[in-house]
Amino acid sequence: MRIILVGYGIVGKGVTTILARRYMEKAASYGFNPKVVAIADVDGAVINDRGFSPEKLEEIKQKGYPISADGDFGHKGMSALEVIENVEAEVVVEVTPVNIKNAEPALSHITKAFKTGKHVVTTNKGPLALAMPALTELAEHNNVFLRFSGTVGGGTPMLEFAKRCLSGDKILRVQGILNGTTNYILSEMGQSSISFQEALSNAQKLGYAEREPSMDIDGFDTACKVVILSNWIMGKKITLKDVDIIGIRGVTLEMLKDAVKRNSTIKLIGTVDDNEVSVKPLEIPWANPLCVSGVLNAVTFQTEYAADQTLIGRGAGGIETANAVLRDLLDIRHKLASKLLS
Amino acid sequence: MRIILVGYGIVGKGVTTILARRYMEKAASYGFNPKVVAIADVDGAVINDRGFSPEKLEEIKQKGYPISADGDFGHKGMSALEVIENVEAEVVVEVTPVNIKNAEPALSHITKAFKTGKHVVTTNKGPLALAMPALTELAEHNNVFLRFSGTVGGGTPMLEFAKRCLSGDKILRVQGILNGTTNYILSEMGQSSISFQEALSNAQKLGYAEREPSMDIDGFDTACKVVILSNWIMGKKITLKDVDIIGIRGVTLEMLKDAVKRNSTIKLIGTVDDNEVSVKPLEIPWANPLCVSGVLNAVTFQTEYAADQTLIGRGAGGIETANAVLRDLLDIRHKLASKLLS
Repeated sequence: MRIILVGYGIVGKGVTTILARRYMEKAASYGFNPKVVAIADVDGAVINDRGFSPEKLEEIKQKGYPISADGDFGHKGMSALEVIENVEAEVVVEVTPVNIKNAEPALSHITKAFKTGKHVVTTNKGPLALAMPALTELAEHNNVFLRFSGTVGGGTPMLEFAKRCLSGDKILRVQGILNGTTNYILSEMGQSSISFQEALSNAQKLGYAEREPSMDIDGFDTACKVVILSNWIMGKKITLKDVDIIGIRGVTLEMLKDAVKRNSTIKLIGTVDDNEVSVKPLEIPWANPLCVSGVLNAVTFQTEYAADQTLIGRGAGGIETANAVLRDLLDIRHKLASKLLS
Repeated sequence: MRIILVGYGIVGKGVTTILARRYMEKAASYGFNPKVVAIADVDGAVINDRGFSPEKLEEIKQKGYPISADGDFGHKGMSALEVIENVEAEVVVEVTPVNIKNAEPALSHITKAFKTGKHVVTTNKGPLALAMPALTELAEHNNVFLRFSGTVGGGTPMLEFAKRCLSGDKILRVQGILNGTTNYILSEMGQSSISFQEALSNAQKLGYAEREPSMDIDGFDTACKVVILSNWIMGKKITLKDVDIIGIRGVTLEMLKDAVKRNSTIKLIGTVDDNEVSVKPLEIPWANPLCVSGVLNAVTFQTEYAADQTLIGRGAGGIETANAVLRDLLDIRHKLASKLLS
């Protein structure tokens, strides 16, 4: 499987590390032979049609920015679109930064990949939040796969769980804490009796919140994930504009203390069911398995026969997200094998 | 897919209900066409080579014991072994009561099924706890599948989650609350400040504990599940005798109150990793996602790349376990389809 990696930040580097490190093991146990044939970054690209060796991938990572300066394989100024268009590969791994205004440049990368017959694994919520129904259709039209487990649940394979493990059942409702930053802030406010602003500052100091925190605290990140869950698990065809979004700026210490009197606390909750697609602060009883603290994520699937199932895991770090990419690559490999046989 | 159902208690009845009710839907969405061709109970059997209609299955359930009295299809006194040997079918669903002394009659049913070329779906922990490595080998030797998701985690698809959703990762440790009865008793002791004996009586009154509670409170049920998790997920080849087992009879109210001082409580925990296969009461911090109350089950998978993943769900009732059988049937159908194509 030849792979073009587009984006070379923390996640991109993690992907090359995991592929290199697990190469031998995976090749042995899955007949899975991933080769990175190109990496496209903002400054240009490195390309090796035969696939970079684990040692070379490590060297590229150690040398750092700009990767296109590489003497043997560097292509200074070559854009990701050119790489996707011209390098032969089966899969494009798209891991550029999120943009929920127009989803670029990821949206162009993904559509270019589809149009040149390449499968896509992405960890980028932007294109999915703004154009998931169209992208799904385009992938089908071009007979390629689109996979995105790194976009929701971070290291926690929520999407796979719903699709694969609950396949004999009907999912009636999905509800969860899908953003570690807001969960950290609300947990801190409650546990340390501090204001929203103080908790936000602490989160920023610890690196849990961005300097521009709107994406998290105004609920957009959660909303992107809700869109993906809705479409993928519940068969809806929605985009970000269809989600009712209320963030956590309005949650006060007083409200949290009030909730405590009812053995509850307040969490930013994304909800999808037949009547509702929303993100808002909700009071959650302590006894509810969803009521996890710190940067944890949690999601409850309400099913027809198996009752409620809750999955809890850490929000995404670079390595967890990179691992989600590996899972998606394995899934595509598996799907291709079944297809070849049919 | 022709199915012989062996055992006609709560789970067995639930299986026929689910298969009948979801027949149309499943046939449509999965190309899955399950037909119950025989049901074997202690008194005899009912057999219909063409498969029982949903209406007839409902009628058999309504008439109740003894099912072999059925005028059209009853075979009074016919044993399950005879049914398995003589009725043509692809799958045997084994849902007789658990026996951890010698695993009978389930063990004979399963081996007979294998030897006559039939796949097996079971919800019975006995044969797996006592003979899983041998049974796995026998299934492979006869080129048939053995599935058992109803044995662990009740309605919560713990086994599938570990196998399918964490497939790109390495599972280093599995630890969990695998028995709802003991969790209920320990939760009750802590929350209502009552003794073990009182909590046990309450659990018995509510139907959460058996009149003969040893299987649960002495840790054997948890240990059976630990054996299954160890073999299936961690690649071990162990049986019940390899598990260090301590139940909850020795847990006092004082110990629980002491744990509270450390923001913790005591839970009966099954653990599998490279060094340990055990069941014992352990102090668990409240902040640990594993720390769920009531009859809930919870299991944490410690993985190399995706960090800890915790799955929480209700312990098994009849309908959840029956639903696990459906999942297993779908899985076998899927595996067979792939096999045919290869």
